[in-house]
Amino acid sequence: MEELVLSTVDQGVLTLTFNRPDTLNAWTDAMGRRYFDLLAQAAKDPEVRAVVVTGAGKGFCSGADFKTLAALQEGSYDAEPDPRPNTFPTTIGKPIIAAVNGACAGLGMVHALMCDLVFTAEDAKWTTAFARRGLIAEYGLSWVLPRVMGQQRAMDVLLSGRVFSGREAYELGLANRAVPGESLLAQAREYARELAEYSSPASMAVIKRQVWQDWETTLREAAGTATKEMIVSFGRPDFTEGVASFLERRPPRFPAL
Amino acid sequence: MEELVLSTVDQGVLTLTFNRPDTLNAWTDAMGRRYFDLLAQAAKDPEVRAVVVTGAGKGFCSGADFKTLAALQEGSYDAEPDPRPNTFPTTIGKPIIAAVNGACAGLGMVHALMCDLVFTAEDAKWTTAFARRGLIAEYGLSWVLPRVMGQQRAMDVLLSGRVFSGREAYELGLANRAVPGESLLAQAREYARELAEYSSPASMAVIKRQVWQDWETTLREAAGTATKEMIVSFGRPDFTEGVASFLERRPPRFPAL
Amino acid sequence: MEELVLSTVDQGVLTLTFNRPDTLNAWTDAMGRRYFDLLAQAAKDPEVRAVVVTGAGKGFCSGADFKTLAALQEGSYDAEPDPRPNTFPTTIGKPIIAAVNGACAGLGMVHALMCDLVFTAEDAKWTTAFARRGLIAEYGLSWVLPRVMGQQRAMDVLLSGRVFSGREAYELGLANRAVPGESLLAQAREYARELAEYSSPASMAVIKRQVWQDWETTLREAAGTATKEMIVSFGRPDFTEGVASFLERRPPRFPAL
Repeated sequence: MEELVLSTVDQGVLTLTFNRPDTLNAWTDAMGRRYFDLLAQAAKDPEVRAVVVTGAGKGFCSGADFKTLAALQEGSYDAEPDPRPNTFPTTIGKPIIAAVNGACAGLGMVHALMCDLVFTAEDAKWTTAFARRGLIAEYGLSWVLPRVMGQQRAMDVLLSGRVFSGREAYELGLANRAVPGESLLAQAREYARELAEYSSPASMAVIKRQVWQDWETTLREAAGTATKEMIVSFGRPDFTEGVASFLERRPPRFPAL
Repeated sequence: MEELVLSTVDQGVLTLTFNRPDTLNAWTDAMGRRYFDLLAQAAKDPEVRAVVVTGAGKGFCSGADFKTLAALQEGSYDAEPDPRPNTFPTTIGKPIIAAVNGACAGLGMVHALMCDLVFTAEDAKWTTAFARRGLIAEYGLSWVLPRVMGQQRAMDVLLSGRVFSGREAYELGLANRAVPGESLLAQAREYARELAEYSSPASMAVIKRQVWQDWETTLREAAGTATKEMIVSFGRPDFTEGVASFLERRPPRFPAL
Repeated sequence: MEELVLSTVDQGVLTLTFNRPDTLNAWTDAMGRRYFDLLAQAAKDPEVRAVVVTGAGKGFCSGADFKTLAALQEGSYDAEPDPRPNTFPTTIGKPIIAAVNGACAGLGMVHALMCDLVFTAEDAKWTTAFARRGLIAEYGLSWVLPRVMGQQRAMDVLLSGRVFSGREAYELGLANRAVPGESLLAQAREYARELAEYSSPASMAVIKRQVWQDWETTLREAAGTATKEMIVSFGRPDFTEGVASFLERRPPRFPAL
């Protein structure tokens, strides 16, 4: 069970690795449960300031496991579903960076997009796949994708279910960075390490919540909420340390969340 | 009347062609009514799985017909308006691809953007035009454009009314593809043919609705709706065929909508 | 007091220049008050058809003044806040173009983004900075940025607080144009001059309001509002002049707002 998702921490960065490489890390309820458990732990772990999510072997996540799909078709699927929705990663108060190392399809693409940033191997193969399987835009992907890459580009990748490269994912605005596969994990971790070193954990928690939630509000309301959050931030040690470290031209030492 | 918009079907792809080439296909109530009638027919026609919209001659659609505008100014305009709003194409359960072959201005640009995807000739001339005629962002263009290309780029093209090329439309994120004019229609049809061949009609109908509607909802609600739609999709023959064709490595044979 | 923001009008274009160059134009309440007063005047001034905002010296605006921040930390801050929110520029019925000539950080970046368009020097240094100071995404930046550049790119610049160039700001979709610093102000003014010459002031006021507000509405409602605004626009002299000048192939002479 524990080996379904590998977990290591280094310099404030937790790396979670989907670990069903024989299936290109196809999604099962058990793997999902383990992934969410580890995210929930990370939320409380003072050692963890940023999270990188990747896949073992040649894939990131190839989508729903075919045994699960077959059971769904036969009506024999009886796993008790995880009560946590697939949007769970967006509620974790720490930044999560997907490092898409290879095949990223269907439910795998949903989970790449539930991360806050996406780094991808240039030659990773991406596809929403749903339309080609008779399925629909699952778990909020039709909400997220247009907000990441624009309405028409989202229509293209959702309606066609076509396969596109990590390089194109970057050009479409879907990924923050596309890099050679051999340096992907190092670059994602380096970026996460900079968040861990230079960004206040309290600030990141608030900012992440703001960005996900401000789609649901007006500019005026968002600005009002920001003013309240700002006043709270003035009272945190993070603000004192943020200003002091800037004036003293040294790296900050922010407290854990 | 019927010649105002030409209509041909080939391999599941309906091509509709605005056909008032003397006026660069300026929009009249009669042409709009014919266009919407053909879309409504297409929605019910089992032969049609995807739609391409283009213009006869040198233009796509040069905007509102000047005779209509003159009548509006003189107060002598008395056509009974079509009860279907200009957003009507977004409610058709089949993907619509604009193939913008030339001048695309004002109301013509509104209708290009009411399509789900946009292909454009590199040298097509685009302009919102409204601000230069003393008009406003008509028929929801101020809603659509920022969601397609981002807020500031939308401000640029709406406030200035400047003319820009299809090449720039692509660079601004407004068009999915910019291609040489002579291959435009072929490429748009080829893309539509792939939708017709590989994407489930039922899936495309749901996905199109999801993408247009999820701007109006929260991520949590969108994910909830998606779960309901997913459960419905499990019961459709499209899902069975989608999985079977994938496992058997053959093109799918999805039923008509 | 009046020298905190310089003000000149030429050919319908008002140029406002933040003028605290010793501090890279760090934001103080007094400077903000002066800026908003000048915008409020511009809204009523028939001579002004478009506004360019830039900074004196090497910076655009380096963010909140450190004396203000220090007073906030010590609890000794007692200025009476301006009742106008930082979103005030979005309510001005004339287009505002930020010409970001240099350092654009924190609150400075908020104010660049409260403008309708952004031109930037290629080598200007941009940063949200907040996360590195223990602060949060202030004054609606978490609302605006994702709508300008997409969700994940906004997460990148907000969570990391990293410094990026004007060139990258353009590539990220954050700026409409990135140009060599020495031609920045001339290009921004030239663009503004074209708005002043070719775009109807009444049209621009309505369009600006539409674009900012249509994020808060549905497509159907936005199209409905647009129809009402369109009918009003038919009765304005701007429409008559817009059509006449087009037919006569001459520049329009639109009335002031």
